Formats: sequence, structure tokens, C-alpha cells
Amino acid sequence: MSDDDSQTLGITESKEYATGDWYAEVCQKAGLTNYGPEGMSGFIVARPRAYGLWERVQGELDARFKETGVQNAYFPLFIPESYLEREKDIVEGFDPEVAWVTHGGHEELEERLAVRPTSESIIAPYMSQWVRSHRDLPLRVNQWASVVRWEATETKPFFRTKEFLWQEGHTAHETDEDAWEETLTRLDQYEEVYEDVLAIPVMRGQKPDHDKFPGADTTTTVEALMPDGKSVQGATSHHLGQSFAEAFDITYSDEDEEERVAHTTSWGFSWRSLGALIMTHSDEQGLVLPPTVAPEQVVIVPIWQSDTKDEVLDYAEGVADDLEDAGVRVELDDRDERNPGFKFNEWELKGVPVRFEIGPHEVEDGEITAVHRPDGEEVTLDREGVADAVQEELDTVYAKLFATAEENIEENVRDADDRAGILGTLGQHGGYVRTPWCGDEACEEAIGDQMAAEIVMVPFPEDEEKHHEAVLAGGAECAVCGDGADETAYFAKSY
Amino acid sequence: MSDDDSQTLGITESKEYATGDWYAEVCQKAGLTNYGPEGMSGFIVARPRAYGLWERVQGELDARFKETGVQNAYFPLFIPESYLEREKDIVEGFDPEVAWVTHGGHEELEERLAVRPTSESIIAPYMSQWVRSHRDLPLRVNQWASVVRWEATETKPFFRTKEFLWQEGHTAHETDEDAWEETLTRLDQYEEVYEDVLAIPVMRGQKPDHDKFPGADTTTTVEALMPDGKSVQGATSHHLGQSFAEAFDITYSDEDEEERVAHTTSWGFSWRSLGALIMTHSDEQGLVLPPTVAPEQVVIVPIWQSDTKDEVLDYAEGVADDLEDAGVRVELDDRDERNPGFKFNEWELKGVPVRFEIGPHEVEDGEITAVHRPDGEEVTLDREGVADAVQEELDTVYAKLFATAEENIEENVRDADDRAGILGTLGQHGGYVRTPWCGDEACEEAIGDQMAAEIVMVPFPEDEEKHHEAVLAGGAECAVCGDGADETAYFAKSY
Repeated sequence: MSDDDSQTLGITESKEYATGDWYAEVCQKAGLTNYGPEGMSGFIVARPRAYGLWERVQGELDARFKETGVQNAYFPLFIPESYLEREKDIVEGFDPEVAWVTHGGHEELEERLAVRPTSESIIAPYMSQWVRSHRDLPLRVNQWASVVRWEATETKPFFRTKEFLWQEGHTAHETDEDAWEETLTRLDQYEEVYEDVLAIPVMRGQKPDHDKFPGADTTTTVEALMPDGKSVQGATSHHLGQSFAEAFDITYSDEDEEERVAHTTSWGFSWRSLGALIMTHSDEQGLVLPPTVAPEQVVIVPIWQSDTKDEVLDYAEGVADDLEDAGVRVELDDRDERNPGFKFNEWELKGVPVRFEIGPHEVEDGEITAVHRPDGEEVTLDREGVADAVQEELDTVYAKLFATAEENIEENVRDADDRAGILGTLGQHGGYVRTPWCGDEACEEAIGDQMAAEIVMVPFPEDEEKHHEAVLAGGAECAVCGDGADETAYFAKSY
Repeated sequence: MSDDDSQTLGITESKEYATGDWYAEVCQKAGLTNYGPEGMSGFIVARPRAYGLWERVQGELDARFKETGVQNAYFPLFIPESYLEREKDIVEGFDPEVAWVTHGGHEELEERLAVRPTSESIIAPYMSQWVRSHRDLPLRVNQWASVVRWEATETKPFFRTKEFLWQEGHTAHETDEDAWEETLTRLDQYEEVYEDVLAIPVMRGQKPDHDKFPGADTTTTVEALMPDGKSVQGATSHHLGQSFAEAFDITYSDEDEEERVAHTTSWGFSWRSLGALIMTHSDEQGLVLPPTVAPEQVVIVPIWQSDTKDEVLDYAEGVADDLEDAGVRVELDDRDERNPGFKFNEWELKGVPVRFEIGPHEVEDGEITAVHRPDGEEVTLDREGVADAVQEELDTVYAKLFATAEENIEENVRDADDRAGILGTLGQHGGYVRTPWCGDEACEEAIGDQMAAEIVMVPFPEDEEKHHEAVLAGGAECAVCGDGADETAYFAKSY
């Protein structure tokens, strides 16, 4: 951190009243991101402290993928226009957002190349080559890469960027059931990473038919509710049915040597998850991170006068060594040129979950004062066995963050039975409004015309507790048009 | 592996007489790569077995970077043309090879965007923002990404591809000495990964001045000698001096509050290393991999008749469990539908370093027959303690691979004192030809006009044993033009 930045520690915008400005300020002051160069609005730089978060999320997800039969690979960055055109829904869905390469060196290309907006159209042709027999299935590949979608919206780091980092998994299976199971396996893993790594509870369900991934049979989603009442589509997993397999000729011979068309899936998790992470937990002192992903889990701030400096520092170094030996990510901030108050603020801004304060009293009593971020709770720990004790503190901090986010989601699912109820509830509270729905896009549009809101999720049939009572009971009427309704729609404003 | 491929196990081309065809066949048959789609010559797909190699190399290098103060980050894929133009050597060097994005969605862009061929021009402007004071230095960032260079040459997987995966490190320092030290630290790490992970001995040195990275003061290189006598530039580390810092205004205030221009470096290691790996060790049975990076270090092939199947399989499973518990990457190939001979061939093709053969005799004697790849040496191991014993076998295999490659390089550095000697030696033997050199590019061109060869390396002054005797003695004459020569040039054909 340079001297300039240090003049302006702490966030000046209000999370509650100016969420967007507050969010942008956190990203900037915590050293997470910079905006792209002139002429490249919509692009960001992920600075090391942000990229480090992505590396941890990546590690968690990648390990889960590998345990469940997925192998990583790498496919070309570009897709020939003619390939993109082979699956008609894909080209219709993505064509308006494609960045086109037209020249290589000083030559104009014969065919334009799309910078991949998603890679089904370049991966499927290879799957077609690799799959011959049922013994080649299931085939599961994943790639960690960046994609480009030229959307003309205001840049919001991680939430809305023209280029973003993600993983995209692509699989082929013998049967529809296998593909559906795969789709849900990946959705489960996304849910796990949100809930067990990012401390963000999510809602599972599927997208309305008219909002599916282009070419998909079903798009499943995990949705997270932000503190400002807007929903974030956390990650999606698509059952693609046979549309891509048919368009790209992914066929296999079954046990009876019959030629059959495969069933495919694709699923993606992007750095938008970092946006949800920052938005959910952070506050007006800056970034708040769960210990699972925090670059530093514990910062030790020694507090000394000139006559106590040596003993305090010795003690603090011993504590740091113990923690490091136990595998805790610890930073001892022994800078001379900064006072403890400044250090407290700086590490709060950076999102360190637990601060150890060590002064002459702590040394004398063989103790340590531990302070939780963000609620400031102080706990006195014994010096002896501190490496074990700190683990409990980290778990407690995680549990508090999760509980706060869970409370938000639990308190903010409300029912409505008519159009006025939907609009009124969304307008007053945000959150999710649950209504019986006929399944017609027009009814979503009728709400969307009045307010920037949409149907973000339809619960799975088997998740009965997530359905509107009237839908479960049968004979429900669509809250918008009054026709028969056998689905439950979750309306929300969304990022 | 599908049934089709299994008909054609083994490589049909000769490594010695048709190296290029042999190499392409290994890449294809070992399931490493596919070529890009029509209209995209020069692009490849890195299939899971190739990408897995890259992941291991990446892990080794990334750990070394992090231990030495480097943090990962991510910068935009595109660079505005005006940014590329700010450092004149960069634009001259890369402009002919740039893939240009001219349209975003249905709109033509106001300014063309280069798909990054290398990222100095987009990273330096951010470094300029991040560096204020000497306390912000050294600044070290690295990115794992792909870059695109539109070269019109024949595709050779990993060696020559228009898009390639790499890491690019970028650092800024207070002094020229600091930047030079950084340059060499990275070169050391590249050398380590080649020698300790890929079993490939390399030669360190610097590129001739006329062949430096655009804008660099000095480009250092590690060069590997392939079995066909051609040199591969394994990785390069550049001391950039102040050219980028001046062009992009990377300045800092020193301890006396004086404004100073920083000194920068950049360094890159690409998937070309996989090309060197495959080319160096493999043979006409297929891929050969050192145990350090092999996806399977040991394959167990059980050999049974129907009456011995149960006991053999039980025994083999026990061995597999022991190895797995000890952290050895082991595969038990218990397929019914394939005979042992087929399995031997298939795993040889895939490059597994050690094969365990287990039949009724081994079970009876409490032993295991271990066979090394590629030399076929057989060793009998005791069943008891096999998890420890296998480690020695793996080390032995590594040592053999390294020794063979080392012998190649040691036998193929020859001296020449005149033009005819250079050409004759290169023509007859390939390898490196060491000559006194005046430093003039024209003398390299004089050789290059006769034969596709160039100066791949000039040894560092302090590596005296690498210099031509006459240069060390003083008063040497350039082997080409006869002028005074105080440098030693290594001529070679190269990839």
C-alpha cells in the first residue's frame, strides 16, 4: 500500500444507501481491482489480493471436480464463425455479444473468429472425434479460462465485466438420466463451494424455460441473495439434452453396436462468485472475508512502548511461529512507522478475519487478545495451545458470517398472490417474492415492465418446501394473469 | 481410448529419420493433442493427458515463484493499439503477429484491440499506478494465461502454435542490480524445472543483442538440445532496463524523496516445455515421461489364467493399495477384455515410467516384476516394503532419462574456427558449434544464408568453461569475418 492510499483508509460510501458506490470503493481501496484502460470499459484487472481469492476458490472447485471424474483440458481461444453457427440457439444467444477477430498480423482473415463467449461450439466437435463407443462415456472435460461477452453495461467489478474468468465443464453421456445426474452433481458442488467456502447460503432451482442457456433443455442455478435485496445468479449447470450432440455429431455405438446420439451437459462458475463474496460480507470498514479464503487468516499487531518493545515483539514472534507451524496463514505486522490504530484500520480494510493484539499485559498474563472481524468481539486466549484455540476462533467467525447471510435469505422470501403484491413487496423489501406462475414469459414481462425484476428461479418439483402453498395444493392461479398455475416463480431484482 | 485407436498402437514413423512426423504421431496417438478447426491452422487442443502435464509443470513453477515473492494476478486479454504503440520496440516486434479485434457485437470498435501477444504494454501502466515509493518495490506479479502470435508457420504441437499457454512474470525494482538479480533468479528457476522436473539438462546464456526481446537490455535463455541435434529455446528471462518504465512512467520516490525511474524485468515459460519433454525422451513405442510429471507413475498389469485370476487380482489390488497409500500415482489395469501384451503396448504408448507385472509366480514368491520405461530393464522387488522400493525405481528411471539427455548435450558441443567448420559441423552433426564471434549480426546472417542455423546463445562472461578457448585467451578472431572477437557464439539449428 502506498502512502497516498493510506491517507484514505476506510470506506466513505454507505453500504445501505449507496450500495453500488460502496462496492466500487471496497474493490478499489482493498486493492482488489483496477478498471481497464481507456477505450476498454467493462474490463478489469484482478490485482493479486483478488486473484488470490480466485486461486483458493479454484483450488476448492478443482479438487471436487477431479474427485468426481473430471479432467482439465485446454481448447482454442477463438471459434470460427461457421462453428458458432452450427447450433442455432447458441449463435442467436451470443452473436450480439461476440468480440470478433478479423485480422491476423497484416492480413484480413478469410473467416471471422469469435473470441469464445462460451466453448460448446469448439469443444463439441472434438467430443465428436473422441467418442466412438459407449466405453468412451461418460466423457468429462473442464477448462479454466477467460471468456468475452461484449455487453454494453456499466462495469461492476466481478459482477459485470466484458471479460471474465471462469471454469466451463463439458460432458457427454449415454442416457438422458446420466446427463441429468451430472447436471445436478455439478450444481451440488457449486452449492457446496458457496456454502462451505464462501459462507454464502444459496437457493437451488432452475431458470424459467425462456431464460435457459441457449440450446439447453434445462438450466439449473444457485442463487444468492445480497444484503441490498438483489439476487445474484451464483453459477449455472445446464442439461443440454441432444441439441449439441445432434448439431456436432456426438454419437456412440451402444453395447448392441447400435449408433446412438449422446446427451451432453455444460456448467460454469465464474469470478462473479468473488463479487457475491465481497458484497455479502463486507462493511464500511472495508473487506470482510471468511477464513477459508482470506490470504491472511490472522494478523498479529504488537503494541509496545520503547521499554516494552523487545519483550512484546519476542512474544509476538513466538505466537506467529506457532500459528505458522500449525498451518495458519498469519501475518505479524511489526512495522515501526505505523501505530497500532493505523494497522487495525488497514487490516480491517483488507478483510483479515481475526486480529491478535499483543501488548505488555498480554505478555505478563501469558494471554492473547483476539478480535473478530467484522463484529469486533474480543476473546482472551491462553498463550499455551493458541494454535489449536485459533482454529475455533476462525470457525466461529465463519459461522457468524454464514448465519448473518442465512438470516438475510430466510427473512426475505415472501409470498404474493397478485401483481400488486409482487410489485409492492419487491418495492418495499427486495428479496424473493414467491408466487404461483402459469409458466408464460408474458407474465414475467408484465412485472418487468413495471420494475427491474425478473423470475430468477423456479424450485425443483421435489423441493416441496420451496413451493408456494397454493401450487402444492393444486388448482392455483397465476399471480399475474390468473390462468392455471402449476409452477412456483421466485421474482427478484437481480445483479 | 476407443476401439479404432487401439488397432494402431505403436508409432510407425522413425524418430531418427522422420523426427517431425514421428513427433506428430506421438502427440496424436498418445492422446495429447488435436489440431485446431478448419480455418484455424496453428491452433491446437491440449487434451487432458497433455494438460495434466502442464498442470504439474505449472504447480512446480508456481510454488517456486510464490516462495520468492511473486504474486499472481490477471490482466485484460486485449491491449488497445495505442498502448501497444507506446513502447516502439514492442510494437515493431509484435505488430506483424497480432490478432486484431475490430468488432464488439454488431458495432465496429473505435480503436482496434490487440489480443495480447505478451502483456508488458498492459501491465506497465498499472505498475505505474501501483508504484509510488521505494517501499512499493520490488513489485512482482505473474499471470498464467494464453497469448496469441499470428505466425505463418506449419503447426507443430507445443513448439509452434499461434496460441500458447504460458506464464509471464513482470517486476519492477529500484536499481539496475536488483532487476538483474531478478532476471537471473527466474532463469535459475526455469533451469531447475527443466533439470529437476522434466529431466532435461539445459545451457544458460544470453541471446545476441540483435535477437533480444523487443525493448529489453538483455534477454537470458535456457536452451535444450533435442535428440535430432536442434536447439529449443526453453524459456527466457528479460532484463528490460528502463525502456518500459520510461514509456509507461513507472517511477518511485526514493528514501530522499527524489523521483526515480524504476527498472523492470519480464520472464516467460510456455507449453513449448512440453514439446521439449515429449521430443527429448519419447521413442518409437510412444511417449516416455519422467515419473515427476507422469499422470500414472506405475501401472500394474496382472497376468492370469482363469484358475489363477482371483489370487493374482487380490495380490495386485493389495499392491495398488500400498502404493496409493504411499502417495504413488498408480493404475491397476484389470480390464478383462484386453490381454497383457496389449496392455503393455498401450501403457508404453502413454508413457508410464514403471510397469509392475504380477502373475502366479510373483504371487507364489511374494515378489513383483518391475519393468522400466523406456529401456525395458527388469527388476524383481519384494512384495514387502514395495511402496518404499518403488520410489527407488522411479528415481532410477528419472536418472536414466536425465543421463541420456545429458550425454546428448555433452557430446554435441563442438568448436569451429572458420565458416567452413561451422557449416560442416552443423551439417554433419547438428548440436552446438562454438566459435569466437565479433558480435556483428552480419556474421550470423552469413551462416544463416547457407543453412537454417543461428546463434542461439552467448554464454555469460562468468561461465568460463562454456567459452571458446581462443576467446578466453584473448585476441581471438571471429570465425566468420576474421575481425577481433571477444564473445563466444553457440550456433545451432533450432526449433
